[in-house]
Amino acid sequence: MNKRLVIHVIGAILMIEAAAMLPALVIGLIYREPGAAQAMLYPMLMLIALGLPLWLLVKPKDQNLRAKEGFTVVALSWLLLSIFGALPFVFSGMIPNFVDALFEAVSGFTTTGATVVTNFENRPHGIMFWRAFTHWIGGMGVLVLTLALLPQMTGRTSHLVRAESPGPSMSKIVPKMGDSAKILYLIYGALTVIEFIALMIAGMDVYDAAIHAISTAGTGGFSTYGDSIGAFNSPAIEIIIMVFMVLYGVNFALYYSILIGNWKAVKKSEELRWYLGIFAFSTIAITAFVTPLYGNVFSALRFSSFEVASVVSTTGFGVVDFNTWPQSAKALILILMFFGSCAGSTAGGMKIVRVALLCKLGQREIRRTFQPRKVQVVRFEGKGVEEAQLSQISVFFFVYLALILAGMFLISLENRFDVQTNFSAALTCVSNVGPGFGAIASDFAGYGPFAKCVLSVLMLAGRLEMFPILVLFHPALWRKN
Amino acid sequence: MNKRLVIHVIGAILMIEAAAMLPALVIGLIYREPGAAQAMLYPMLMLIALGLPLWLLVKPKDQNLRAKEGFTVVALSWLLLSIFGALPFVFSGMIPNFVDALFEAVSGFTTTGATVVTNFENRPHGIMFWRAFTHWIGGMGVLVLTLALLPQMTGRTSHLVRAESPGPSMSKIVPKMGDSAKILYLIYGALTVIEFIALMIAGMDVYDAAIHAISTAGTGGFSTYGDSIGAFNSPAIEIIIMVFMVLYGVNFALYYSILIGNWKAVKKSEELRWYLGIFAFSTIAITAFVTPLYGNVFSALRFSSFEVASVVSTTGFGVVDFNTWPQSAKALILILMFFGSCAGSTAGGMKIVRVALLCKLGQREIRRTFQPRKVQVVRFEGKGVEEAQLSQISVFFFVYLALILAGMFLISLENRFDVQTNFSAALTCVSNVGPGFGAIASDFAGYGPFAKCVLSVLMLAGRLEMFPILVLFHPALWRKN
Repeated sequence: MNKRLVIHVIGAILMIEAAAMLPALVIGLIYREPGAAQAMLYPMLMLIALGLPLWLLVKPKDQNLRAKEGFTVVALSWLLLSIFGALPFVFSGMIPNFVDALFEAVSGFTTTGATVVTNFENRPHGIMFWRAFTHWIGGMGVLVLTLALLPQMTGRTSHLVRAESPGPSMSKIVPKMGDSAKILYLIYGALTVIEFIALMIAGMDVYDAAIHAISTAGTGGFSTYGDSIGAFNSPAIEIIIMVFMVLYGVNFALYYSILIGNWKAVKKSEELRWYLGIFAFSTIAITAFVTPLYGNVFSALRFSSFEVASVVSTTGFGVVDFNTWPQSAKALILILMFFGSCAGSTAGGMKIVRVALLCKLGQREIRRTFQPRKVQVVRFEGKGVEEAQLSQISVFFFVYLALILAGMFLISLENRFDVQTNFSAALTCVSNVGPGFGAIASDFAGYGPFAKCVLSVLMLAGRLEMFPILVLFHPALWRKN
Repeated sequence: MNKRLVIHVIGAILMIEAAAMLPALVIGLIYREPGAAQAMLYPMLMLIALGLPLWLLVKPKDQNLRAKEGFTVVALSWLLLSIFGALPFVFSGMIPNFVDALFEAVSGFTTTGATVVTNFENRPHGIMFWRAFTHWIGGMGVLVLTLALLPQMTGRTSHLVRAESPGPSMSKIVPKMGDSAKILYLIYGALTVIEFIALMIAGMDVYDAAIHAISTAGTGGFSTYGDSIGAFNSPAIEIIIMVFMVLYGVNFALYYSILIGNWKAVKKSEELRWYLGIFAFSTIAITAFVTPLYGNVFSALRFSSFEVASVVSTTGFGVVDFNTWPQSAKALILILMFFGSCAGSTAGGMKIVRVALLCKLGQREIRRTFQPRKVQVVRFEGKGVEEAQLSQISVFFFVYLALILAGMFLISLENRFDVQTNFSAALTCVSNVGPGFGAIASDFAGYGPFAKCVLSVLMLAGRLEMFPILVLFHPALWRKN
C-alpha cells in the first residue's frame, strides 16, 4: 500500500475540516457566544496541529491511488472527520457524552439527520451551525471537495471518488476529475445560495435560512427546532424546501447538462423519470390515504408531498409526524426508505437506478420461466447493461438488507424498543434518511451507547455505499501477504 | 402450448385429490360424524366428476412438457387443489366463509399453517384430519405424487418437478424422474409413520398422533389445539416433534444416500452443515436471551430449541408465544423466518443453499473492493457455482423481498394492524412459516377478505418459489404470439 499518499491526503482532509469549522467559529463570535467559539477553536487547532505536518512533511513519491488506497483513504478520513467533528458538541457542553456526540457527527456527515438532541431551546448558534454544516460537507463528499481544492492531485484519483460517490457507476462530468469536482461544488453552492435567498424571502431570518439551506443541500435533515419544518407553519417555506429536497435528489450531472444547454440529456434520463414517477405516485397514494385524517385534500397533499419528498430525498425534515398516519401510508413510507434518489445526487438510500435495474432483473427472471431460451438484455438509459454490473447490483441489494437485519438484531440486544422501531432505525440509518417509526420519530436519544455505535457504523456504511466500510471487517484485508 | 397434456395431467391431479380425501371421509365415519363425512364426500364426487373425464378423454399426443406447460400445470393445479380443498371446510360449517376456507386450504397445501380457526373445541375429527392432511400432500408436492403414481408419464417431466421442488436446482435421486418421486414418497411416508409411533409412545392418542405426525411431515404446523404443542405440556412430545421438524428440513436426497450406505454424501454436505450450524447458533443465542424469563437454562433451552426448530423448518408449531420474548430473540426469529431449510426438503423459506451462496457472494463483493482484479469463483458443496446461477439467486432474493414489501403494503390498505404485524404476516406467508408477530401470533382471523386473498397469493408464491405464480401476472404471457 502507498502509505505516504494515504497519509498525505488525510492530512489535507484534516486541514479542510479545520477550514470548514471557521464559519461556525465566526457565527459563535457574532452571536457573542464565547463558549461556542472556543468549542470550535480548539478542534480547529487540533486539526491543524495534526493535519499540517502530515500534509506538508509526508510527500508521496507516487501520486497514483489504487483501489486499496482509495477505500482506505475514504474509510479513514470519514472516521477521523466524525471524531474531530464531534468535539465541538462535547467541548460546548451541548452533547457532553462523547458517544452521543460521535453519533451526532456521523449522522451529520453522512447526511442522515438522526439526532440525540431533544431540547432545542437556547442552543449556541455557532454549534448548531456546525451541526448543520456537517451535512453540507458530507452531502457532496469531502474527498470530492479535496479534489476540487487540491489541483496538484493529478494522478489517478478515480478510486477515491468511486468510493465516495453515490451510485453504481461514477459519471465523470468532464474528462478531468479535479474539474468535475469543481463544477459539482459550484452547482451545489449555487443551489444552496438560491434556496437560502428563497427561504429569507419566505420569511425566515438569516440564521434559520442558512441552517435550513445547508441542511437541505446535503439532504441531511438537522433543523434548529424540535418540530423541524413544522415549527414554521408556513406553506411557502414548506413548498420551497420540498422543491429543493426533490432537486437535490437529482443527478448533478443533469444540472451540468442544463448549464451547457444539453436539455436532451434531461429529457432522455430514464432514472429521472423513475424518480419523479415514484415521487408522484407516492404523493398521490398517500394524499388519498391521509385525506380523511386532515379533512381536506389540500392539507393532505401539502403534508404528503412534503413527507414523501423528505423520505425519497433521504433528508428527513418533517412537518407532521407520519407515525400518526394510517398503516397503508406508513407501509409506503417504509418502502420508500429503501429507495433513495438518483445516483450522483447528495441523497442516500439504494439509489433509484439500482431499484429500477432490480425491477427489470426481476421481470426478466419471471419471463425466463416461460421463455427460458430467449436472450434478454436489460436496458437502462437506452443502453444494454453488462451482466457483471447487474450481478453487482443484486449482490449490493442483499448486502444492504443483510446489514439492516444484522443492525436490527444488534440494537435489539439492548432490549429497549420493539422490532418495528429497531428495524426502522437500522433502515433509516443505512439509507441516511433520519427519522424512523415509533420511539425514533423525532430523536434517537432513547438508544444506549452500544446501539448508537452500531447505528453509526450503519450510517457510514450507507453513505459510502457499503463496501469501503464493510471491507474493514474482512479478515483477508488484515492478513499479511 | 400442449393444452391436451396440461388438461390430462390436471385431470389426474384432481383424481388424486379425490383419493386424498378418502382417509378424512373414513375418519368422519369412524367418529360417527355424518356432517363431516358428507362434507368430505361431496367434494370427492365433484373432483371425480370433473377429473375423470379430463383424464380419460383428453389424451395428449405428445408426452413432452416444456417450461411453459410445466408452470401452467403447477400453477393451475395448486389453484384448483386449494379451491376444492376448501370445500370440506365450507360444507361442514367449520369455516363457512369461502374466502376464509380458501385461505385455510392454501395455508394447508403450502404447508404454511396460518389459520383462521380461533376456537378448537368440538371440531369434527374428519375435517380436522383433512386440514392437517393438506400439509402432507403439499409438503412433498402433489406433482411429485402424480409422477410417483402415474407410470405412463414417460416423457420429459423435469419442468414439472422443477416448478414444484424447493431449491435453486433440482437433484434427481435416480435417473428416472418417476422412480425418484417414488423413493421420495417412500422415505416421506416412512418418516411419518416413525414419528406417528413415537408420538403414541410419548402419550398421544392415535388421532392426535396422526394429525401431528402428518402436520410435522409437511412442515405445516396445523394442530388440533389452540395452544399448539404447548397444550400437551410434555417434554417428550416436544423433543420428538422438535427432532422431526429438524429432520424434515434436511434434503431428502441425503436420506436416500444413507439408505444406500453412502454416508460420505452426508458428511460432505455443506448445506447440511450450514443448516445445523444456524439451528445450533440460534438455539444457543435465544437460550441466553430467554433464560432470565424462564428462571433456568433448561426451560430456556427447551423452549428456544423447539421454537427455533419450528421457525427454521418453517413448521410453525409453538410451545410458547415468542411475542413475549425479549426483542433480541424476536429480532433473531424474524431473521430466521427468511432462511427456511435445505433445498429438497419439505420446508419453505429462501432455502439455506441460497442464503449461504448470497453470503459468499456478499463476501466476494467486499473482497473485490481491495482486490478488484482477482478472479474469485464461488464454491459450494466443493464445486464452483456458475455465475448465471449466482445471478439467478440474487435476483430471487430481490423478488422475495419485493413480494414481502408489496404484500405488506397491500394488506396495510385494510388499516387493521401495524406495520410490524403486516410485515411479519407477509414474511411468514411467503416463507410458509405460519405464526407471526403481534395480532397474528396464533391466528389470522383478524384480517379482512382482501388481505386474506393477498396472503393466499403470497403463500402460493412462496411454496412454488415465486416464479410459477408471478408469471401469471406477467403481461407477455397473455399476449398472443
